[in-house]
Formats: sequence, C-alpha cells, structure tokens
Amino acid sequence: MKIGFLGLGRMGSGMAQRLLDSQTDLIVYNRNPAASKPLVAKGARAVARPGAMADRELVFTMLADDQALRDVVLAPEALLESLPEGAVHVSCSTISVALAGELAERHAAAGQHFVSLPVFGRPDAAAAGKLFLVAGGAEEIVERLRPVFLRVGQDLWWVSPRPELANLVKLSGNFLIASTIESMGEAMALVEKGGVDRHAYLDFLTRSLFTAPVHRNYGKLIADRAIRPAGFAAPLGQKDLRLVGEAAEKLAVPMPFFGSLRERFLALAARGESDVDWAALGVEAARSAGLQSTDRDN
Amino acid sequence: MKIGFLGLGRMGSGMAQRLLDSQTDLIVYNRNPAASKPLVAKGARAVARPGAMADRELVFTMLADDQALRDVVLAPEALLESLPEGAVHVSCSTISVALAGELAERHAAAGQHFVSLPVFGRPDAAAAGKLFLVAGGAEEIVERLRPVFLRVGQDLWWVSPRPELANLVKLSGNFLIASTIESMGEAMALVEKGGVDRHAYLDFLTRSLFTAPVHRNYGKLIADRAIRPAGFAAPLGQKDLRLVGEAAEKLAVPMPFFGSLRERFLALAARGESDVDWAALGVEAARSAGLQSTDRDN
Amino acid sequence: MKIGFLGLGRMGSGMAQRLLDSQTDLIVYNRNPAASKPLVAKGARAVARPGAMADRELVFTMLADDQALRDVVLAPEALLESLPEGAVHVSCSTISVALAGELAERHAAAGQHFVSLPVFGRPDAAAAGKLFLVAGGAEEIVERLRPVFLRVGQDLWWVSPRPELANLVKLSGNFLIASTIESMGEAMALVEKGGVDRHAYLDFLTRSLFTAPVHRNYGKLIADRAIRPAGFAAPLGQKDLRLVGEAAEKLAVPMPFFGSLRERFLALAARGESDVDWAALGVEAARSAGLQSTDRDN
Amino acid sequence: MKIGFLGLGRMGSGMAQRLLDSQTDLIVYNRNPAASKPLVAKGARAVARPGAMADRELVFTMLADDQALRDVVLAPEALLESLPEGAVHVSCSTISVALAGELAERHAAAGQHFVSLPVFGRPDAAAAGKLFLVAGGAEEIVERLRPVFLRVGQDLWWVSPRPELANLVKLSGNFLIASTIESMGEAMALVEKGGVDRHAYLDFLTRSLFTAPVHRNYGKLIADRAIRPAGFAAPLGQKDLRLVGEAAEKLAVPMPFFGSLRERFLALAARGESDVDWAALGVEAARSAGLQSTDRDN
Repeated sequence: MKIGFLGLGRMGSGMAQRLLDSQTDLIVYNRNPAASKPLVAKGARAVARPGAMADRELVFTMLADDQALRDVVLAPEALLESLPEGAVHVSCSTISVALAGELAERHAAAGQHFVSLPVFGRPDAAAAGKLFLVAGGAEEIVERLRPVFLRVGQDLWWVSPRPELANLVKLSGNFLIASTIESMGEAMALVEKGGVDRHAYLDFLTRSLFTAPVHRNYGKLIADRAIRPAGFAAPLGQKDLRLVGEAAEKLAVPMPFFGSLRERFLALAARGESDVDWAALGVEAARSAGLQSTDRDN
Repeated sequence: MKIGFLGLGRMGSGMAQRLLDSQTDLIVYNRNPAASKPLVAKGARAVARPGAMADRELVFTMLADDQALRDVVLAPEALLESLPEGAVHVSCSTISVALAGELAERHAAAGQHFVSLPVFGRPDAAAAGKLFLVAGGAEEIVERLRPVFLRVGQDLWWVSPRPELANLVKLSGNFLIASTIESMGEAMALVEKGGVDRHAYLDFLTRSLFTAPVHRNYGKLIADRAIRPAGFAAPLGQKDLRLVGEAAEKLAVPMPFFGSLRERFLALAARGESDVDWAALGVEAARSAGLQSTDRDN
Repeated sequence: MKIGFLGLGRMGSGMAQRLLDSQTDLIVYNRNPAASKPLVAKGARAVARPGAMADRELVFTMLADDQALRDVVLAPEALLESLPEGAVHVSCSTISVALAGELAERHAAAGQHFVSLPVFGRPDAAAAGKLFLVAGGAEEIVERLRPVFLRVGQDLWWVSPRPELANLVKLSGNFLIASTIESMGEAMALVEKGGVDRHAYLDFLTRSLFTAPVHRNYGKLIADRAIRPAGFAAPLGQKDLRLVGEAAEKLAVPMPFFGSLRERFLALAARGESDVDWAALGVEAARSAGLQSTDRDN
Repeated sequence: MKIGFLGLGRMGSGMAQRLLDSQTDLIVYNRNPAASKPLVAKGARAVARPGAMADRELVFTMLADDQALRDVVLAPEALLESLPEGAVHVSCSTISVALAGELAERHAAAGQHFVSLPVFGRPDAAAAGKLFLVAGGAEEIVERLRPVFLRVGQDLWWVSPRPELANLVKLSGNFLIASTIESMGEAMALVEKGGVDRHAYLDFLTRSLFTAPVHRNYGKLIADRAIRPAGFAAPLGQKDLRLVGEAAEKLAVPMPFFGSLRERFLALAARGESDVDWAALGVEAARSAGLQSTDRDN
C-alpha cells in the first residue's frame, strides 16, 4: 500500500515506524528533515515537500496544531492540491473541531476522503502500537482501513460519519485528563497540608477507587513533582483546553471546570513555565497552598 | 470479643452483619429499633440506649453526620460516659475533621481509645466485606484490630496516629468522586450536544484511559440519567463537600474545583431535588446545556 | 473638514449626527443603505462602497465586530486601499486587541494614521455627545482631533501611542460592567430568596456605597427583569468577553471571574436567549436560585 | 436616655462617641477596659461585666464575630440575663443570619426587643456619624429609635420585621464590595500587563462609569498596593464571606463569584498574610499575573 506520513514529532515518528513493513511503500515528510533519518534507514523514502504525495492512496498527518496542519494541507501546492482523487487523508493531530469540519469539506470538494483519527496515549504507547484511536469519517473507509489503523492502536472506536466529532471526543478526553490532574492536585495538597504523606495517599487511591491509568500516571507525576522534562508540555495542554473552550462556546455548553483549568494554565504561563509537563497543573494547588516541597526537584 | 455497633443504616447494617459470627458477642443500637431485627434474628442483642455499652471492648459507630454522632457519643449517659477504660471506639462515619479531633481528645481524657475508620464503598460493598478502609489512631491498636476490620473491608490503610487524618483522607476521596462526576458530566454534555451518542462515548472512555470503578459506576449513572432512587443522596454529598470546604479553609488550601461543585449542589437544592443520587451533579451539565433528554426517566 | 463615517448602527448613527454641522463635509456608508437617510436629509452624502473615501482626511468606523471591520477596511478596494496618505482612520468599534494592532501596522505601511477610539456609553449617550472616549495612537494626532472627538464624547482619555491599548481598556471596562451585573444579580437573588424586596434593596444600595451609573442602570434592569428589548444584546457582550479572554490568554493574566461570566453567557445561549440585554446575566442568579418571578415580564 | 454600649473597637468607639451627649446616660463595656478611657473622660461610665446593664433601656453591641457576640449576650449573667423586660438590644455587629435569628427568639422569650442594625462604612465614617444603617426588627421600635440611630448614621433603611434580614443585607453588601475589589484587581492586572498605567486607568474609570465610593476607595488601595495597615483586615472579610456562603447554602442560592472570592482569601491565608486589608484581594490578580511591582511597598 502506498502510504504517506507527514509530521515526525515524538508521536508521529513512533506511529510511522509501526506502519513500516515489507508490504508498505512509505513516504515521509517532516519540516525538519533530520527526523526522517531513522525511518529512511528502515526503508522509508523522505520527501522535501508536503505536496510530494501525488501517488499516495493513504496519507497520515500528525502535527502540533491547527496552523501546522493548515500549512501542510491547505497551502498552495501542499497536500490537498497534490493528493489524487479517491485518496484518503487521515488526520491524527489534536486540532479544532472547526478545522476538521473545514478539511472534510475541502477534501470532499477535491474528490478525496478525509478521516479524523485522533489518538489517546503518550509517545511510548505510539511506538508500541498501543494507542486508543477515535475515528470520524465514512464508515466503510474507516472499516476498510481498520487493519492499518490497528498497527498503531490497540483499540479503535468509530464515532460518526462526521470526522470532526472524533476531534470533539479527543478534546473532551483531554479535558477529562486535565480535570483529573487538577482534582488530584487539589486533594493531594489538602491531605498533605493536613499532615498525610502524599505518596502513601496516592498509593491508597490507586488501589481502591481510582485505579485508572489516568490516575496512576498523572498521580505519580504530581506526587513526584516530576514536571520536567515534559512528556506532554503545558502549552500544548493549554492549546487543547482552548479548543475545548471554543467547541463549548460554539455548542453553547456551560462547563464550569473549564474556567478553573484555564486559570491554572495562565498561572503557569504567567511564571513563564512553558517547559513543564501539563501534570504541573496538579502541582499548582500545592504551590498556592504554600507547601514548601513544591519547588523541589523541578 | 464483646463488640457494640451503633447506627444501622444501609451501610451500618451490612457492616454489622459481617461482624456477627460465633466468636462475637454483638450488641447493636439504632435510634429506630426496627433496623435491629435482622441482626437480632442472627444472634445479636439490641439495646435501647447508646449508653448501654458498659461491658464492650470495641464499639463501632456509623452515623449520618456530625450531629448524629455527637448525639450518641457525647450526650449525657451516651457512649463516652458508658464505655469502660481501655475500650476502643471505632468511628466509621463521614464526619468533620474537627469533630474527629475533638472525639480523640475526649476519649483520651476518659482513658479510652479512639480510632477513625472511614470507609469507601456503597452499601453492597459493605454487605460483601469489600469496603476500602482508612484508619487513623494509635498504630498498635489499629494493627491489633486489623483482623476484625478486614471482616468488613478488603483493604486497610493506616494513615497516622492522628485519627482525624483518616477523616481528612475520606473527605478528600469524596471530593475526588464529586470531581469525577462533574467532569464526566461536562464532557458527556459537550460531546452529546455535538452529536455523539453518550453511551457509546462512555463505553470508549471506560475501556481506554478512564477504567476506574469511579468512572464506570458514576459514568453509567450519568449516561443512564439513573439518579433515582439514590444510592448516595445528593444532600449527603453536599454535606461532605461542606466538610471538605471547612477543612480546606482551616488548612488554608485553595481548591478551585470546590466552588464549582458547591454551585452544582446548590442548583440541585434550589430545585428541591433532595432525593436524587449525587450522580445528578453530572446530569446538571446536560441540563444547563439544554439537552432535551435530561429529564427523561428521572 | 472632510469626514467619512462607516457603520450606521444605533451607536454610529448617533455619533455621525453629532459630527454633522455647517463646517463638516460628511460622507457616510452603511451596508444597508436605509440607515443613511436621516443623515442625508441633514446634509450628509451617502456612498455605496466603503472604498469611496479617496478624498477624506478623517474616517470613523463603528462596526459590530472584528469581521465587519475587516470587511470594510481590509477587503480589496475597501477603506485601506482608498484612503489617501496622511489621512486618519479612527476606529470606534469594540474589537480585539489583535486586530487593532494589525490595523495600526497596515495603515502605517500605507502612510496613513490609525487611532483606536473605543467608547463607553449606550446609544442615548452617543446621540447626546455624552460618551466616554478612550484614545490610543499618536498623541499629536489625538490632540489635534480632540475638538472633533469631543463632539461625540464628554471626556477623552489618551492612553498610549499604541492604539490597541485603548481597545484593551475598553474590553476591560466591559469586563467590569459584566462583573457588576453578575455580582448584583447574585446579591439580589440572595436577599430576595431570604425575604427582602429587591427594589427596596437596590434603592438602598444605590444611595449608599454603590452609587455609580453602572450600579443604577444595570441594577434597575436586573430588578425590573427588563431584559427585552436589548439595549446591548447578550451575544455582543459574549463576544466582548471572548475578546477579554483572548487578551488575558495572550498576556498570561489569570482572571477568575472570567470563567463564571463565560458560564452565564453560555447558559443564556443554551436556552436560545439571543435577543436579551446582557443585563440578563444578572437575572440568571435568580433563575438558578429558583425564584419564581424570574420569568415574569421578560 | 439610659444607653449601654458593648464593644469598643475601632467602629464601636466612634459610634459610642456619637451617642454621648448631655441627654444621654451612657454605660460602656469592653473586654479590654483601656478602650473605655476616652469615653469615660467625656462622661460615660465604664463597667467591668457585660451583665451590668440591669437599668438600661437601650443597649448597642458592636463585636468582631458570632463568638464574641455570644460571649457578651448569651453567656451566664451576661446581657440577655441582665437586660430588663422591654429593653432593646441593638446589634450592629456583622454576624451570621442564623445567630441574628437565634437572638431575636431568645430576646423575645425574655420579654426584650431585638433589632439588627448592621452598618456600612469604615471607622472614619463611624466617628463622623456618616454610616449607612440597615435595620431589621419591629418597625415601631426602629422608628421610635430612628433619631438615636441617626446620630451614628447618615441614612437608615428599615428592611423587615425579621431582624436577621438586615444581617443578610449587610452580608450581601460585603459580598458586593469583595466582588468589586476582585473585578477591579483583575481588570487592572490585565491592562497593566498590557502596558497601561494603572493609576491613570483608575482615574479614567472613576470619572466615567465607575464613580461609586466603592470604586474610588478600593480602586485607590489596589492601585497604590496600600494593603498595610489594614483598614478592614482580610481575615474579617474572609469571615464575612464565609457567612455569605452559609446563608447562600441555607437558602439554596448558587453564587458563582463566591467560589472565586473564597480562593483568593485562602491564597492570602496560605501565605500567612493575615494583617493586610481586604483590598489585598485585588492585588492578588497582579501577583498571579507575575507583575513585578506587586510586592512593592507592602
């Protein structure tokens, strides 16, 4: 199968690796070409322009934000203009609901297909093919490509023929993660200031009612104050939250927790902490409670 | 062992049942004596006053709130005055940190022991001996009684020699549950109003990153709008949140999510909905978003 | 003086009237030309295109939002392209800080001047020349034009040579008004539900510590539930709040009240109440408290 | 007239001074007797116990909080027990709605009258007789005493025969002041971080739409960072806000701004800032936005 992959960041590189095998003819593109080397070493071909996809049947994109995706898709001579009729663009980036809707229209007008396939999971899950996938777009196309998608994911949920609803689900999921971080941070600050050891507390929580990966992974980052280096940087989380807010405003859905999360991100940004993991949201409660250990080993 | 049990509500009845066996001499008390019957039928003895505990080594209390516990413990001729020196009062109620601290002092002054043993779990878990237990109080006493405690619980965490810290942990846990309910309610309202089926959404969440019991149990109640009859009634949740707020104020710990949760409880109360499960918090987001199905099958 | 005026809504019409006198050669433009008639009757000349301003020294714009202003200024053959070198564009619209900054650059590049002159006051104040004006832009130009500006305003504050700072001030002012509406709404709901007459309450407030026009005007609208017809429609207020949020995010300034105000606007929008005055924010507290009179005479 | 005055803090002293004249027989009480000296020098008589009021017709109390008022009124041999039948207790303290209701009942049961007369204004207004007074209690008694009351106040509003409603009004007023402080603090932080001079900004606000004393007085304290010494200390404001919260909870009135204000007070408390004026709430926004000048001259 002739596959293209645009965007070789930490997530994209891992995913592209999983797609590479003897059956696959893989072309990769990254703005900074250095990221292509490991893939080329294994048989992929690197191209210098996002528009060099004229013979591809299936192209994945995994980029940082709306603007980056616009640049590789909608710019003159970029992906949209180069992709042949009948080809499928699978967008894995966490982007706005609005842009997903716009891309669906633009590709349809060009006789191409568009599938939103946002993913849940961090880079290690991407490399291990263990992502959770949410698909939006024509059902028959999603089902036809399911075997390909499951090379990068352990599970796939087809949401709707409207691609942008997969993006809405992805954004809502990041909202849930952020809410978990915040609530665990507040609870931990409360008990710690009262005199309870926060690591023992987390240990209890995660073996009783709060056993999900989201509790274990983020709980540990918060308790350990392990906010550097960032696995998922706070500014990216802030961007996703902004997109949640935009979707909620468009749909007229009041979301009280949104405001509190927004404040936390702005407080981090006001201190210039742009290099921390978004688990740092959960350390803010300790900081605002005046807990001394907060600034340790950051 | 000579054990007493005061408070035979839905939680207390199940716990007292678990304590009854051939080795145990169990006296039970409940304000409304009808609740004692099933236990008496199995060999317990019912008494008419909380103060009829003069020969007990170990007395459990499981009552609705601070006032109810004060009534059976601190009133004239009640538990505190009747309990012999060296006996242990194990308080399982969800009460304020302040009252737990006060009881610890009062019992110590009377030569008695006080252990806070709040529990996590709903009535079915109590009846099945599957509660999660958090213990605060003298470590040697907690360890000596561990086998007894584990008849009602599947796991026990000894937090601190200060009994009230177990209560603080319990309150923080209820705050985490309420935060989970609220955040899932908001996320579900967002995707549902966008056009996603909320049951399918929950199904995806709970098999990907949000797999904890708290996600599955409350997610289902929210998605099903199954807020009546109440497993845990909203006014009780509101009471617990109030105690969280008092603890946070005493300890000077800002908790932004607290305010949002408080608003939700007050909105429910303003509509007179006192008979709903606290999962109703999570249905409020749908209601405020104008989703029609909200009022169905309530 | 050769003056142009683009945008003859309720605010713009009143302002344009004030500029018309024997010394002024006034050209007006409005997308819907009917709005020009009263001005033409008094001696203004109506044009059919925003670009018909080639001989103007000074052009005012007063439009609904960023997009409307972009349309008349930045579109091909619109104001920017038609205005002569050295001419001054005075933008009175409540627009984003970002757009004001962009217009300043674009006009400078074209050898023109740009002044931001957002206004405080409702249509009656505009017609009476009683607006409060906030000016941003080159000081000497603002001072030279001060006499013209004071035909529409009773007071003018020059903030900064950076035009967009006047817009930031305007947005912050609308945030303060919205906060006043919300806080008075909450306070009024509290005392009313307790048993106090809300009109008597307002009367006391506005003759003691809360005597500002913003208290009197909005307090009366809230107490009277006089939210229709809208003097300033809720969706416009929501737009302004969104711009406040964008500015706060850009500048990294946490603003806790922002989130609460946003929720209120979304709750209004979720009920489809787009035709109400933004004073309706203040009636929401009564509604959420279950006060019966809320829906009366709306 | 035989008048008693209990509580000679900064407010009470000023008020008692205003009541002293040739027609008045004034007895004063203060826990720390030193505060009585200036009044004794002018003809008042100091007593050593709050219960030494057996011959008084009218007794004012002005104390710090519920507990202090309980101590002088409800303790054995204190005011309630000593006051003759038919006498009037006028409570000026900012206390809970619940305690006011309780006092009304207790005094009625003793054949005495109870009037709630909370005041708006700072110590200088008390000394100048310029307070704003809110009265709750039997209308004929309030009207009969109006001339006496107006020696300390410039205006009096009789709210209701239920004394506690005057307290509710007072608490709501303090909520409005706190909301004004917070909103001005946020707005000022926003424009200052954008590049606007905050003093010039305040100057504009207070001569346009935001002209109330509450804007001018608190705006200046915030802009000047003049939070020490405290005119009205933050912990007192926090106490009042707590009483607002209790009233709102009792009445089931959701108040979204309450949560944000509560966080601010807790953030102050977490830093141990108990000696600052509650205007410090408004400086928190600057601090959380990272503005350097925040800590200047505190």
